[in-house]
Amino acid sequence: MSRSTPATADPRTDARVLRSRAAILQVTLDLLTEQGLGGMSIDEVARRSGIAKTTIYRHWPTRSALILDACALLSAHMDVPATGHLHEDITALLTSIAAQLQSSRWSSVLPSVMDAAERDADLAAVYSQLQHSHAQAVRMVLTDARTRGALPDAADVDLLTAGLLGTLFYGRWFSRQALSASQIAQLVTIMLGPPAQDEQL
Amino acid sequence: MSRSTPATADPRTDARVLRSRAAILQVTLDLLTEQGLGGMSIDEVARRSGIAKTTIYRHWPTRSALILDACALLSAHMDVPATGHLHEDITALLTSIAAQLQSSRWSSVLPSVMDAAERDADLAAVYSQLQHSHAQAVRMVLTDARTRGALPDAADVDLLTAGLLGTLFYGRWFSRQALSASQIAQLVTIMLGPPAQDEQL
Repeated sequence: MSRSTPATADPRTDARVLRSRAAILQVTLDLLTEQGLGGMSIDEVARRSGIAKTTIYRHWPTRSALILDACALLSAHMDVPATGHLHEDITALLTSIAAQLQSSRWSSVLPSVMDAAERDADLAAVYSQLQHSHAQAVRMVLTDARTRGALPDAADVDLLTAGLLGTLFYGRWFSRQALSASQIAQLVTIMLGPPAQDEQL
Repeated sequence: MSRSTPATADPRTDARVLRSRAAILQVTLDLLTEQGLGGMSIDEVARRSGIAKTTIYRHWPTRSALILDACALLSAHMDVPATGHLHEDITALLTSIAAQLQSSRWSSVLPSVMDAAERDADLAAVYSQLQHSHAQAVRMVLTDARTRGALPDAADVDLLTAGLLGTLFYGRWFSRQALSASQIAQLVTIMLGPPAQDEQL
């Protein structure tokens, strides 16, 4: 796994191996989506994919490692908007995350990982990586804005990130009422104040 | 189950029956806390409690009904503060909910129910009742404040409730960083604006 291993010697470049890996990840995702983490065992992945357990374990030494890789496929790639206008960037980001929350398989699998994380340290680590990409994108936009003076120096980036994402997440998993576009706009104004003169849309 | 049934004829008042019910609920809670919803079957409740499955089904016709009653035991009773000072009341409420999130068994069981709710309409209903008590308390304080003019008529109570609770919930289940007392105070000021002159502490 060393970075200096020449690509030609990497068994992962072998087409058959890549196909097996893809099949295993797909079956894992199907199981997670259909039944949650409780229904996802290496035995069941082997049975459905027709790939031997020994092969699965060769690629992923633990169930947690397999879950992490499968869920990474689901995590949408977050393009971090950087127009230089704080309100515009945050609104674009929240709108994109809100749409993902409604449509992505990731959002129906996450509570399962969250549940397991309550009782399993390995899965707690998986889980923390899973929700990291959204948080990181919001955090970057806020930190950049603070650096260029669009947010006060005293602004608490952790708290604002929790406020912005927490409100969206609450609508998806707690109240089960998705936020409308106008509520997202209101939320941004509540959390960040009105846009600065040179940032008004 | 009619309301006009005299209390003396209600089998639930029989001491032995009450003891059985309490034992079944306790075992259910233990299983939910230890293993999440996946580990909680009527078979296992019967095995651990030593109470026959037929008896369990007589009290709770479905697994969801049993889960709901067990979780209701966990839901902390929310005293809704009503000093007439919006910021004081909301801060007290959020501080109390934040403490419950750190300490209560309810908060470690909830993701399990949330997960199951993604795939099961019965459990989605259970789940919605489970998180209702917190939301209802916040909503009442905000609605009362709007009625007496401490919040603008245009304030979106749903959005503010999602913002206040979502931020706390994000710290418990997503970022896994509990909010400090000073962050709770900041959150209240961000979401509700600075306290009115006659509401300042």
